[in-house]
Amino acid sequence: MAAAVVVANGLTKQEKRAGGIDGPTNPMVTPLLTDLYQFTMAYAYWKAGKHNERAVFDLYFRRNPFGGEYTVFAGLEECIRLIANFKFTEDEIAFIQASLPSSCEIGFYNYLRGLDCSDVEIHAISEGFVVFPKIPLMRVEGPVAVVQLLETPLVNLINYASLVATNAARHRFVAGKSKLLLEFGLRRAQGPDGGIGASKYCYMGGFDATSNVAAGKLFGIPLRGTHSHAFISSFMSPDEITEKSLKRSDGSNVCEDFVGSVQAWLRKLKWSKLLGGIFGETNQSELAAFASYALAFPKNFLALVDTYDVMRSGIPNFCAVALALNDLGYKAVGIRLDSGDLAYQSCEARKFFQAIEKEFKVPDFGKTSITASNDLNEETLGALNKQGHEVDAFGIGTHLVTCYAQPALGIVFKLVEINNQPRIKLSEDVSKVSIPCKKRSYRLYGKEGYPLVDIMTGENEPSPKVGERILCRHPFNESKRAYVVPQRVEELMKCYWPGRSGKDREELPPINLIRERCIKQLEQMRPDHMRRLNPTPYKVSVSAKLYDFIHFLWLNEAPVGELQ
Amino acid sequence: MAAAVVVANGLTKQEKRAGGIDGPTNPMVTPLLTDLYQFTMAYAYWKAGKHNERAVFDLYFRRNPFGGEYTVFAGLEECIRLIANFKFTEDEIAFIQASLPSSCEIGFYNYLRGLDCSDVEIHAISEGFVVFPKIPLMRVEGPVAVVQLLETPLVNLINYASLVATNAARHRFVAGKSKLLLEFGLRRAQGPDGGIGASKYCYMGGFDATSNVAAGKLFGIPLRGTHSHAFISSFMSPDEITEKSLKRSDGSNVCEDFVGSVQAWLRKLKWSKLLGGIFGETNQSELAAFASYALAFPKNFLALVDTYDVMRSGIPNFCAVALALNDLGYKAVGIRLDSGDLAYQSCEARKFFQAIEKEFKVPDFGKTSITASNDLNEETLGALNKQGHEVDAFGIGTHLVTCYAQPALGIVFKLVEINNQPRIKLSEDVSKVSIPCKKRSYRLYGKEGYPLVDIMTGENEPSPKVGERILCRHPFNESKRAYVVPQRVEELMKCYWPGRSGKDREELPPINLIRERCIKQLEQMRPDHMRRLNPTPYKVSVSAKLYDFIHFLWLNEAPVGELQ
Repeated sequence: MAAAVVVANGLTKQEKRAGGIDGPTNPMVTPLLTDLYQFTMAYAYWKAGKHNERAVFDLYFRRNPFGGEYTVFAGLEECIRLIANFKFTEDEIAFIQASLPSSCEIGFYNYLRGLDCSDVEIHAISEGFVVFPKIPLMRVEGPVAVVQLLETPLVNLINYASLVATNAARHRFVAGKSKLLLEFGLRRAQGPDGGIGASKYCYMGGFDATSNVAAGKLFGIPLRGTHSHAFISSFMSPDEITEKSLKRSDGSNVCEDFVGSVQAWLRKLKWSKLLGGIFGETNQSELAAFASYALAFPKNFLALVDTYDVMRSGIPNFCAVALALNDLGYKAVGIRLDSGDLAYQSCEARKFFQAIEKEFKVPDFGKTSITASNDLNEETLGALNKQGHEVDAFGIGTHLVTCYAQPALGIVFKLVEINNQPRIKLSEDVSKVSIPCKKRSYRLYGKEGYPLVDIMTGENEPSPKVGERILCRHPFNESKRAYVVPQRVEELMKCYWPGRSGKDREELPPINLIRERCIKQLEQMRPDHMRRLNPTPYKVSVSAKLYDFIHFLWLNEAPVGELQ
Repeated sequence: MAAAVVVANGLTKQEKRAGGIDGPTNPMVTPLLTDLYQFTMAYAYWKAGKHNERAVFDLYFRRNPFGGEYTVFAGLEECIRLIANFKFTEDEIAFIQASLPSSCEIGFYNYLRGLDCSDVEIHAISEGFVVFPKIPLMRVEGPVAVVQLLETPLVNLINYASLVATNAARHRFVAGKSKLLLEFGLRRAQGPDGGIGASKYCYMGGFDATSNVAAGKLFGIPLRGTHSHAFISSFMSPDEITEKSLKRSDGSNVCEDFVGSVQAWLRKLKWSKLLGGIFGETNQSELAAFASYALAFPKNFLALVDTYDVMRSGIPNFCAVALALNDLGYKAVGIRLDSGDLAYQSCEARKFFQAIEKEFKVPDFGKTSITASNDLNEETLGALNKQGHEVDAFGIGTHLVTCYAQPALGIVFKLVEINNQPRIKLSEDVSKVSIPCKKRSYRLYGKEGYPLVDIMTGENEPSPKVGERILCRHPFNESKRAYVVPQRVEELMKCYWPGRSGKDREELPPINLIRERCIKQLEQMRPDHMRRLNPTPYKVSVSAKLYDFIHFLWLNEAPVGELQ
């Protein structure tokens, strides 16, 4: 790499252009991460002398995912990082040149060489907001050739981020606020970046922690994890544990034979009045693994109890170790269930813990934490709630991170204006007609504090005002319209990349703040929009003026049919 | 980064350890890309002095995806790249230390500091092979703590790669050999790496090209792409084209008004005997965009024809430009259809092209290529075949890359032996019981050249021999067994990472060779295993000796129930 040129204020040229914004988290997100046709179009624009025509594109989706009526907007920061650092290397330009026909003129590659996003302006809804179909999540203005090159990576970066954040929010909604939600999906995610993105955006959407260490390091997400079935079966019997001593938690003295103490507790449990007869001989590999894990993590003992038999082996073995720890002043964390009937097992485990609390007078033993983690999704969480369960924490993987119920969000990127001329994309399917013009959008709130409707207006229309009646029209259905007197008006898009406009650049907040914003946003929605079964669609509208203009343009562009 | 130490043979220490193998394609694939519990387990193993116990893990899946009876194995090279370069940085160790309880002993971090995969041995089926449930795709042996750390990234790297390669192969199967298959999924993929991985593994599974420029550069995959709807609507009318001249293809002279020539052809088409009345006024934005694109790419003119109306505007406009190009010695490539009834439109377009060939005596014009690309998947390809169509190339995106029909493959990683002791993982669900022992596996071929059955044996059993009868048993169902006299015996796993075993390391072939291998593998399967509807399951078996051992171990480990 060429040595960076340090300019006057101490920043390198690159850093100055980027406004001090780091590059994308994944270094593979480069200006080449786009479709070839963006380059062929760029060349054709350049060849026609059109490449610097000022274009406005809207990025939006047409339908909420998972059969719901809301979406969480995520992925913005990565988009801004790409834009701030958008610059071709010589190596990349050579590759583009080799990929385009040899007849393409050399001047084009010089043009690419000088290209960056300093003349691009981006307005966007803030990351973590609840968003709805048709409303632009992002408005990208700039030289048409540059903005086209951005299309593919922006759609890629928003699509999965928003989808998985929404999926996380939906899982949180079903699980309830009080449960701990852990994202365990790395191994089943669609590639390494799918895994890292899942961890980031599930946290944003309301999860509490991840198992993914790389994501923990990159984004500061809390990490969780204990041990797997293989750990259990790697042990044969307690005899193989050679170092058996454990210090008391206060350091006051040492128990020389912790394993013996565990075995003594197991016998006590076996012959106890309350628990007697529930189990006979427990599995000795498992007992050895638990004791060994407790010796390594006396303050963090959480055991996977379903390797052999939950009630006849896992739970009694866990309790024996937990009680031996308790004797030394440690408090075991809890158990994890990873198969079978989670509702039933969690209730049985809870009873067992409560019986121990009662019989052996161990305060709070009945509240020992229960984590469940087998192929969970929205449906199974709902079913567990119906059956009644005693689970405190859910570890969710495959269904969460791959968005099994709907693995893609249909984000699109449509030209709405070029050279100050509004453009519309028609389609025989009305839901696919684009809403033309450079626009603003607002969220209007009602008396009870709930958002009532989102409205799009032309860029230069006066904004809706608190206490003033405004007509909100469905963009395509002339009979659907309503007057609204907003109690609060919130402009949705802010300037996240001012280009040369001289506007202030909105700061990119840390992930914790985005997560808090997202949770607040979800809480302020009217409950009927959020419910899983038959949710009420949230209203999305255009101003009367924009409505008229859309339909004027539509008639202008649509060919008049000829019946034959 | 510290300066690399150059050792005797000119390789740095790092390169020497890596055997000259590059690191993972995605630099985010580091030893931290794993679940936290792999580190907590590693610590517990270390604390118990068990970390260097020699363990054998099998990586496999339990069910073929997409309701089919085969899977394409992919992702191996990325696994070997990770393993070859597996080494913690100081920064990563500091993060692990901060993430584990403060009570963890410092010696553990010194252990991590020295850790690499030089003592790990990996046997695997070759990338691009057709594979089946339960048969190990990869056998990973080594110190238990290290192998556990590898579990998550190996599963992550194989899971999506094999899933999407299989999806690509299935799409190819339905489309047929003669069609060009283009992967267009980057924007809808699950994150940037999902997009890059999709492009790589779809090519491996039999696609011909991708739109993803970054993947083209990284892997040498052919690139395809022309223009989008936005390109069309960025033009207003042919009047805005200022540079209208185009040189003849042989350079002999220049047509000064190519746009005028296009317009003249459009009038000829309109009033021609064969085509007359099919269309009236075509859209002028579209005509301008096509003419402009042809001026930029006279040798590569492929036009998206559905922005306004395929038959009344797109096709006539395309043909006018194509015929004007033809006058100058250029041959237009074809059209792309991106909405509506693709079967019907392609047939109508073909008729139109053929009529032009006939009326205007333009050789081969009737064969002008037709690409289709709207939300295609296995089902819609099948439906198009049933209806009859004239499409030559399919551009497939969302359904292909997100594996919409089944977005995850259930790859697992199970301990099968530790310290030379075979281990079994039991489950109430028989399909989840693991097959113990360090094993070999073979594919046995019949007289007609088709593979008949895969068989697993213990590591030290004699291998099946050509012409010798061998009993193949279902691993769990005692009544399912068959004698086979193989005509060919193929050992499935080869040594891809010898560790300290002194074995030869199998080379990692370039992607083109893996793709060819994959196509050959798919072709040699008996057709009834491959068909979409009710395919015959391919048989997977164990030797009689392994069968007996599995069931001996099973009885040994399973608790005897007590009816109460």
